[in-house]
Amino acid sequence: MDALGYYNGTWGPLDDMTVPMNDRGVYFGDGVYDAAVCVNRVIFTLDEHIDRFFTSAELLEIKPSCSKEALTALLQDLVQKVDNAPLLAYWQWTRGASRRDHTFPPGTANLLIMLKPIAVPDIYRKIKLITQDDTRFLHCNIKTLNLIPNVLAAQRARERGGKEAVFHRGEIVTEGSHSNVHILKGGVFITHPADNLILRGIARSHLLGACKKLKVPVEERPFTLTELFNADEILISSTSTMGLSAEAIDGKPAGGKAPELLKKLQDEVFGEFCAATGWQPGVRS
Amino acid sequence: MDALGYYNGTWGPLDDMTVPMNDRGVYFGDGVYDAAVCVNRVIFTLDEHIDRFFTSAELLEIKPSCSKEALTALLQDLVQKVDNAPLLAYWQWTRGASRRDHTFPPGTANLLIMLKPIAVPDIYRKIKLITQDDTRFLHCNIKTLNLIPNVLAAQRARERGGKEAVFHRGEIVTEGSHSNVHILKGGVFITHPADNLILRGIARSHLLGACKKLKVPVEERPFTLTELFNADEILISSTSTMGLSAEAIDGKPAGGKAPELLKKLQDEVFGEFCAATGWQPGVRS
Repeated sequence: MDALGYYNGTWGPLDDMTVPMNDRGVYFGDGVYDAAVCVNRVIFTLDEHIDRFFTSAELLEIKPSCSKEALTALLQDLVQKVDNAPLLAYWQWTRGASRRDHTFPPGTANLLIMLKPIAVPDIYRKIKLITQDDTRFLHCNIKTLNLIPNVLAAQRARERGGKEAVFHRGEIVTEGSHSNVHILKGGVFITHPADNLILRGIARSHLLGACKKLKVPVEERPFTLTELFNADEILISSTSTMGLSAEAIDGKPAGGKAPELLKKLQDEVFGEFCAATGWQPGVRS
Repeated sequence: MDALGYYNGTWGPLDDMTVPMNDRGVYFGDGVYDAAVCVNRVIFTLDEHIDRFFTSAELLEIKPSCSKEALTALLQDLVQKVDNAPLLAYWQWTRGASRRDHTFPPGTANLLIMLKPIAVPDIYRKIKLITQDDTRFLHCNIKTLNLIPNVLAAQRARERGGKEAVFHRGEIVTEGSHSNVHILKGGVFITHPADNLILRGIARSHLLGACKKLKVPVEERPFTLTELFNADEILISSTSTMGLSAEAIDGKPAGGKAPELLKKLQDEVFGEFCAATGWQPGVRS
C-alpha cells in the first residue's frame, strides 16, 4: 500500500477511505492539522509537530480525542503499514460530527490521518517565487483547515512557473502560502515575528536554531517587499521544504548574494534531518 | 426519512452518508455552498440561491459539475424524498477529490446536498445579540466552506445567551456570523454595502425590495457600533431568519423605538415567504 488513510480507528488504502458527511471538516473546515516528513519509518521532529497540533486544537477549543503519547504511538504504528518510501504524515482533528449547526456539538474531535509518498526535496535547488496579497484571516498562527486563500495563491504560483507564493499585507511580507519566508541581509537572518499573521513554523524554529549555533544574528521583525526584492538571499521553509532558497520573484532575479552563509544554514538544518532519519541525498530510502 | 444526504449521484439518510477522504472539502475547506428554506416541497427563492451559488463557484474558480437547470431539478426531486416538514436545503461544491495538494486538481466539482428539518422562525420574535471582532478573511462576499471564525462567533453568542454575533472591523459593523445586519434610524434603513466584507444576502435583497415597495429610504453605507447601539431598530436577516429584530446587544437594551416601521418591513418579507410556500404561521405544514 503506497498511501494510507485513517479515521477514528478505521484504516485502509487512502484513496478508498471515506469520512461521515456530518463531519464538521466537510462543511465548515472546522478543524486543525499538522504534518511531518517520515523517512525510513522515522517521523522527523514528531514531538514538535504533535505539541503544535495540540496547541492549534486548544486555540480553536477543539477537544482532543487522545493524549500526545497515544497519537505519537498511533502515527508510529501506521507508518509501518505502508511502503517504505519517504512519506508525508498528515493528521487532523475536526470538531466532531453532527448535523450542520454553527455552534459546537458535544464530544471530542474526529481524528483523520493520511500517509502519502512525497519527494524529499533537494534543499540546494533554487526556486522561483511570486507575490500575492495576503487576504487571509487573522488566525494564521493556528494550523487550520480554512485554507482557500492559500490554495488560490499556490495555484497562482504554479500557473506563473513559481514554487511558492509569498503573501504580503500592504508592504509587509508575512509568509508563503504553505511556508515561512525569511531573508538574509548583511549577514543577518530576518524573519516575521511569530504573531497571529504567520504560522510558527517548525522548520523556521530549526533555521533559528541553526542561526544560533552558527552565531548568525537574527532579527524577528516585519520586513517589506522592497527588503525582500533586495535581500542577499531569500529562504522559504516548511516541513517538506526545510529551507529552499529563491533565485527569482515575480520573474525578476533575486537573492544569490550570500551563497556561503546560505549553504551553512542549509547544511545545518538538512544535516540534522539526514542524521535523524538516515536519509542519504541521491539514494532512495 | 427526516434528513437526506446526496453526494455525486448517491443519496440516502443523511446520518449514514459519507464522502471521500480525498475530497478537498475535508482538508482545505475548498468549496462553496448555498442554502434555502423548503416548505410544502417549495424551495423558497431557489433561483436566486442557485445564481449566487454559481457566482461563488466562479469567484473561487471551481468548475461546475452541472447546469443551473440540472441543479434546480435535482434539488426539487430530492425534497420529494424526505418527510414533508420545513427543511433547510443545503448544497455545496468542493474542488474535486485528489490526494492533498494545494494546487487545483483536474476535473469538475463534487456536489454534496443535505436536506434536514428546521424550524421556520417566528419573524416577530425578539432576539439578543453580542458583538465580536471580525477577524475573517477578505472574501466574505463568497459563500465558502472556510467558516471557523463564524463558528467561533456563533458559539460565543450561544454561551452568552444570544441568537447571533455581530462582527465589527474596528468601529464598523460588517455582518453577523451567519446573517446580515441592518439598522433603522430616523425612518431610514441602513445596511453595509455589498462589498467583499459581507455576503450579498438574499434575505437582505428582499428587505431592500420591501423598503423600495414601502418607500423607506435606504442607505447602503458602513455604519458604526455606536450607530448600532443607538439604532431605532436592529434587524438581522438570513435565509432562515428572514428579518428578526433585536432587543439587546451585549446585555444592553437596544432597538424597539420604531416598532411600526419594523413590522411593516417584516410583514412584507414574511408575507412574500408565506405566499410562495403556503406556510401558515402556527400551523404545521
